[in-house]
Amino acid sequence: MAPPTPRLVIPIDLKKKPWQQKLPLHNRWHPEIPPVTEIKTGEMFRIEMVDWTAGSIQDNNSAIDVKTVDLSTVHYLSGPIRVVDTDGNPAEPGDLLAVEICNLGPLPGDEWGFTAIFDRENGGGFLTDHFPRATKAIWYFEGIYAYSPHIPGVRFPGLIHPGIIGTAPSKELLNIWNERERKLEETGPRSLKLCEVLHSRPLANLPSTKGCILGKIQDGTPEWIRIANEAARTIPGRENGGNCDIKNLSRGSKIYLPVFVEGANLSTGDMHFSQGDGEVSFCGAIEMSGFLELKCEIIRNGMKEYLTPMGPTSLHVNPIFEIGPMEPRFSEWLVFEGISVDESGQQHYLDASVAYKRAVLNAIDYLSKFGYSKEQVYLLLSCCPCEGRISGIVDAPNAVATLAIPTAIFDQMG
Amino acid sequence: MAPPTPRLVIPIDLKKKPWQQKLPLHNRWHPEIPPVTEIKTGEMFRIEMVDWTAGSIQDNNSAIDVKTVDLSTVHYLSGPIRVVDTDGNPAEPGDLLAVEICNLGPLPGDEWGFTAIFDRENGGGFLTDHFPRATKAIWYFEGIYAYSPHIPGVRFPGLIHPGIIGTAPSKELLNIWNERERKLEETGPRSLKLCEVLHSRPLANLPSTKGCILGKIQDGTPEWIRIANEAARTIPGRENGGNCDIKNLSRGSKIYLPVFVEGANLSTGDMHFSQGDGEVSFCGAIEMSGFLELKCEIIRNGMKEYLTPMGPTSLHVNPIFEIGPMEPRFSEWLVFEGISVDESGQQHYLDASVAYKRAVLNAIDYLSKFGYSKEQVYLLLSCCPCEGRISGIVDAPNAVATLAIPTAIFDQMG
Amino acid sequence: MAPPTPRLVIPIDLKKKPWQQKLPLHNRWHPEIPPVTEIKTGEMFRIEMVDWTAGSIQDNNSAIDVKTVDLSTVHYLSGPIRVVDTDGNPAEPGDLLAVEICNLGPLPGDEWGFTAIFDRENGGGFLTDHFPRATKAIWYFEGIYAYSPHIPGVRFPGLIHPGIIGTAPSKELLNIWNERERKLEETGPRSLKLCEVLHSRPLANLPSTKGCILGKIQDGTPEWIRIANEAARTIPGRENGGNCDIKNLSRGSKIYLPVFVEGANLSTGDMHFSQGDGEVSFCGAIEMSGFLELKCEIIRNGMKEYLTPMGPTSLHVNPIFEIGPMEPRFSEWLVFEGISVDESGQQHYLDASVAYKRAVLNAIDYLSKFGYSKEQVYLLLSCCPCEGRISGIVDAPNAVATLAIPTAIFDQMG
Amino acid sequence: MAPPTPRLVIPIDLKKKPWQQKLPLHNRWHPEIPPVTEIKTGEMFRIEMVDWTAGSIQDNNSAIDVKTVDLSTVHYLSGPIRVVDTDGNPAEPGDLLAVEICNLGPLPGDEWGFTAIFDRENGGGFLTDHFPRATKAIWYFEGIYAYSPHIPGVRFPGLIHPGIIGTAPSKELLNIWNERERKLEETGPRSLKLCEVLHSRPLANLPSTKGCILGKIQDGTPEWIRIANEAARTIPGRENGGNCDIKNLSRGSKIYLPVFVEGANLSTGDMHFSQGDGEVSFCGAIEMSGFLELKCEIIRNGMKEYLTPMGPTSLHVNPIFEIGPMEPRFSEWLVFEGISVDESGQQHYLDASVAYKRAVLNAIDYLSKFGYSKEQVYLLLSCCPCEGRISGIVDAPNAVATLAIPTAIFDQMG
Repeated sequence: MAPPTPRLVIPIDLKKKPWQQKLPLHNRWHPEIPPVTEIKTGEMFRIEMVDWTAGSIQDNNSAIDVKTVDLSTVHYLSGPIRVVDTDGNPAEPGDLLAVEICNLGPLPGDEWGFTAIFDRENGGGFLTDHFPRATKAIWYFEGIYAYSPHIPGVRFPGLIHPGIIGTAPSKELLNIWNERERKLEETGPRSLKLCEVLHSRPLANLPSTKGCILGKIQDGTPEWIRIANEAARTIPGRENGGNCDIKNLSRGSKIYLPVFVEGANLSTGDMHFSQGDGEVSFCGAIEMSGFLELKCEIIRNGMKEYLTPMGPTSLHVNPIFEIGPMEPRFSEWLVFEGISVDESGQQHYLDASVAYKRAVLNAIDYLSKFGYSKEQVYLLLSCCPCEGRISGIVDAPNAVATLAIPTAIFDQMG
Repeated sequence: MAPPTPRLVIPIDLKKKPWQQKLPLHNRWHPEIPPVTEIKTGEMFRIEMVDWTAGSIQDNNSAIDVKTVDLSTVHYLSGPIRVVDTDGNPAEPGDLLAVEICNLGPLPGDEWGFTAIFDRENGGGFLTDHFPRATKAIWYFEGIYAYSPHIPGVRFPGLIHPGIIGTAPSKELLNIWNERERKLEETGPRSLKLCEVLHSRPLANLPSTKGCILGKIQDGTPEWIRIANEAARTIPGRENGGNCDIKNLSRGSKIYLPVFVEGANLSTGDMHFSQGDGEVSFCGAIEMSGFLELKCEIIRNGMKEYLTPMGPTSLHVNPIFEIGPMEPRFSEWLVFEGISVDESGQQHYLDASVAYKRAVLNAIDYLSKFGYSKEQVYLLLSCCPCEGRISGIVDAPNAVATLAIPTAIFDQMG
Repeated sequence: MAPPTPRLVIPIDLKKKPWQQKLPLHNRWHPEIPPVTEIKTGEMFRIEMVDWTAGSIQDNNSAIDVKTVDLSTVHYLSGPIRVVDTDGNPAEPGDLLAVEICNLGPLPGDEWGFTAIFDRENGGGFLTDHFPRATKAIWYFEGIYAYSPHIPGVRFPGLIHPGIIGTAPSKELLNIWNERERKLEETGPRSLKLCEVLHSRPLANLPSTKGCILGKIQDGTPEWIRIANEAARTIPGRENGGNCDIKNLSRGSKIYLPVFVEGANLSTGDMHFSQGDGEVSFCGAIEMSGFLELKCEIIRNGMKEYLTPMGPTSLHVNPIFEIGPMEPRFSEWLVFEGISVDESGQQHYLDASVAYKRAVLNAIDYLSKFGYSKEQVYLLLSCCPCEGRISGIVDAPNAVATLAIPTAIFDQMG
Repeated sequence: MAPPTPRLVIPIDLKKKPWQQKLPLHNRWHPEIPPVTEIKTGEMFRIEMVDWTAGSIQDNNSAIDVKTVDLSTVHYLSGPIRVVDTDGNPAEPGDLLAVEICNLGPLPGDEWGFTAIFDRENGGGFLTDHFPRATKAIWYFEGIYAYSPHIPGVRFPGLIHPGIIGTAPSKELLNIWNERERKLEETGPRSLKLCEVLHSRPLANLPSTKGCILGKIQDGTPEWIRIANEAARTIPGRENGGNCDIKNLSRGSKIYLPVFVEGANLSTGDMHFSQGDGEVSFCGAIEMSGFLELKCEIIRNGMKEYLTPMGPTSLHVNPIFEIGPMEPRFSEWLVFEGISVDESGQQHYLDASVAYKRAVLNAIDYLSKFGYSKEQVYLLLSCCPCEGRISGIVDAPNAVATLAIPTAIFDQMG
């Protein structure tokens, strides 16, 4: 007998607002956000999701929505999903949750996406000191291809992937996150010249009740207030996976996530039609709504067996990924290089971030010689299937980073 | 009529010491190191080269040579080569030198290489705080494949490439280098906690007469002393290309180097049979002697036309690369992730170097569960065709870096 | 504004029989089968289709349905579709119809397929003299992967494609087809020893009223009888495209079809989840229902401009294809060879069909050493992404054909 | 200790004629041609070889040499090589000889090759009825690339491979070959209309003393006369491997050859810089001199264990191949199709040779619209990395064959 069609466990109705969805969304990581559904290992299930801003960015030519978007409410995630085995026993802390991405795509009837440069005063991005103003490109999909009226002459196949997929942190892990990020905010590199040169963005995004959405937990209740003050923002990737933005995490990939709470409490969102390594403009992928068809297995005790803590506690681990076999073939690549000397001429020590910044700037300058504005290229390099490599990280004082661009994106005009 | 066999312009006799070679080698960047030969645009020519240590590391089981190697003498480069066009007019500052890699390989009769972890007290490496002791793996070549008696069960095809290829800096550019690196040495991140955690290595390698070799310029003469005190070390990649360690720069690739002095004064060396992105153990590629067959073109005024300065002067540029079409097909990749939280649990701000370090450590820990020592895996990840990616560089405070390893390297046992 | 969701021009309701569908299907090629719908160039439209047998083969363990299937009714096609340009002018004979495959897949809720060996007495196949009995394998889909309870230990990603896509023939072309195929039936290789050795299958499938379905033309009417007696079977690929079974014709591909009648009258069907080159067992792909999202352009006069007739009339042409960029990466291939000596030891002259037969038989014999029955391997080689190559076609008397199998299909067990 | 440089067991001096070489060449298959050298399993050894005509075709613009070449003397092979295991025991009939291609390339100083259309009266080719006149293209190599002054605008990377590699047949196998090929000559398809349409070439090439070279066996002696009258020509691939012309058999590939005589008596030759599937113009690869570096293993009794006879005796087997992982990446392919209807409009029954002929003719016609002569395209499709596929072999009466051409060959101008 054929297996049943993937069970739709989290439906999205794009005509409704996020808070009107049948199953409530959430935008924070916390162990006490209750699961909205339950799945069994071995079954294939379908999750639908809004785009990371839940419709705040519109399909039009104005970037006013980008400039004013309320970033306290992102990312809107679908879940949490409680995972149990075929005997009904939930995933337990210390297990590994293996999640296979069987299928994924845009939501039918919503085949478009956006890439944006955030305003320096509202979010910023990797090159916010060079490109401080809000800008937007809309992309339309033709099957595997995306094209944009805002960046003509470009068309490329997408490697669709979820930007965010992760399990709920335990209370202990959450405390670690909040403590280390608060410390950065207080004492961190804001005081350092090199950071001022690089960025004027917030150093971290600490818990706040503003914009907080906690799924089934009613807004404004004492419980909500307590949890909102503890719950981690979804901006950075962390030990639980989360916003890892791995551009090749498409069909056929498998993710081994550590389990920190009973039931694993899997959440996902931030679907990307395509992303370049680094997602440099921050809202840099082709952001869209979408669906995922997943299958889970529980590897009992797998976290202890396969992951080695990299820090003071046993919780300092990272997921492992197997990349799927389907991807576009590209024949020719144009490669730009950067070294860890910044735009003021200052030498940094083996700093791959500075080196990558310079590689991206070099690519932008070069490509803008062919009729594009620099903003267009910045948007393009954020979302096209370009590869950002750490080529050398040992030859003091210069890290060497490279950005490789498949030239076929420029001539695949249907 | 068939074109002639590539003209051998720089021969190497491996039975001789570096200073006994027919054409003298050099190990510094300086505009006044005289060319040892001249080539014309359009002709194919052959350059031979010693390994980067000129034979200091032996094909045996002891790492004592690694521990005691004199790093003041590296890298031994072949060149400089003066480039003139078919009318005999030399490349000029402001031109671009397009160098095509037509062919390359190990020197016949010398089909072996080495990968080493440098001692913390002599060179160190990306993970020197974890792996402080000198270690060595010898690799033997069987055509496209390398295998090592020191890392059994592994065999992979190499993407042979020169670690170093570059043009001579002008005096002005050299001054910029020396000034910014000196400043780093004096006031740089040595004072910062984050750097102490990461490394105990020298911040930069400033000019020094010790170990200096300047080609045709006689050791110990006043000219030699003056130049040696100005000439830049070859360790880092810089505006002139140099030690860029781009692992895919193999057959069929093309490099567009800026020209800073009359004749371009092209030098190359540091041949690698294979390298992983990052070359993490520092002496991390499969280091070997070798040959290059090259063809050059001069793009007049191309530096000004195609490269955009990224800094206070018009000299702050980087080369551009086109990657060749030949590479091994790999089907399945295992991907490890790191975020910019260091091993002490401290949060860093969008630091791709810290994130990549954690990704590499995660990979080492995982693979060491399958019967390898951690040192073996560290060596392996330095030289096998693994990809180091900057996956996310915008989601404050965590940069996300990934290390992707082709699983086929573990089962291609002949 | 985002382009609208692809317009569904031919819907299929899988709960209904073929003759109950909203728009009638057809299973013959004829210029007078009336279009069921019309599309404009530039618009994206969606076609749904039944599997080629319209549900005759069931998802179960018995091959009785394969043994008794009525082959006079295949292939059930969706269409014809009349194509007009944005001014409303139809495609004209002599034009080229460029069809881009934007998206395609199984019909939601019907994610399974079948591969079958036809009985020697009912359809047969490439190796019917070796495998005369009806056999069946059912495949289930998990996103990009297919697996079969009937061929355990195998799992591979599919390259979904339509087996059949073509335009309607003109009356003149239809006459050419019928005449040449009738001639083959009458005087053809049936008399030749070599063919008797190879096959006991019908030489051609001439027009017949039995099982004939002509869309909007009512069964049994005089018009139906006339057309049924003229209309070509859909079994072979011909000048109009049709059953070309090109396994890489997946997402992002583009097909340039000659236009023989006003409006082009495009039809398509016979969706495959995956197919091996040659589709050797005849019902050899993973056959399924499915959908296509297409976009058409008309290249006016393109047939005359780009296609060169290869025969006595200007109609002897073939379509041209551009293959899309998305396909699974495979690293290792096992290759079996055949030469044009048949199993009786008889030498044939540069006969690629005989050579390929022997290559397939060699592969079956080899793989059956690893625990599979030969029927299982025959089914597998029909539908897995293996490549059938004409390696040498000039070295008299032996053609050399090869069958290359990606070894990863044997170990990608989820 | 590093393994020694591959031992040169068969040297070639290109300044000498074939009969002046240090070790004599041979151009026939026979069990009694004595080995010229011996190698041990596990050692890497080097074989040099002349081009298949031993210098008969010159690097110039005239095709007179092609027109008049003496085809009774081809192919000049290096060998036979006796293979023994590390205990000195030779390979035995019934064993498999595993040959790994570690490295290969043109002979230094001879970096050029040729592709030719043979004259209808002297060799012919797949399309000799369309292109009856001798034509020649010379190719020059720039590292991995080949370009030709006779086919401007084209440049592509080569997948270098030996066209011929095989073991000596036993007397019994030789008798089988001679008998079946003689039978074809006497009673074969020459009588059939379809063959006359296709070809006017010899049906087989039976043993003859003319041009025969038997290595160490002195010309004209009674032994030579006897053997020459029995020895098989090297034109077709057969059970012993031989002229299999598998274009992907490059670096890192492995060939499992059946052993028919004591010592295996391995011979090889006919080096190709690049070949298209089918090698359609007969002298169709880029033919060159070259070297191979090989490593052999003996799999005792492997022929019986892994190969299944496909005919009346246990000798009716074929080699198995593993294809190496290094190949050029191509992104975009243009695909031409053919069906088994010939140029006269006659229908053939599932004849892949006819279908492939039509696909090649379609490609030639299409590409000749872009400024090439048809002869140029015919030469190009013979030697560029195009793929010839058997797409459908079951849809009576039309086999469908396709020819896929990577479009990058047209724009990779250095």
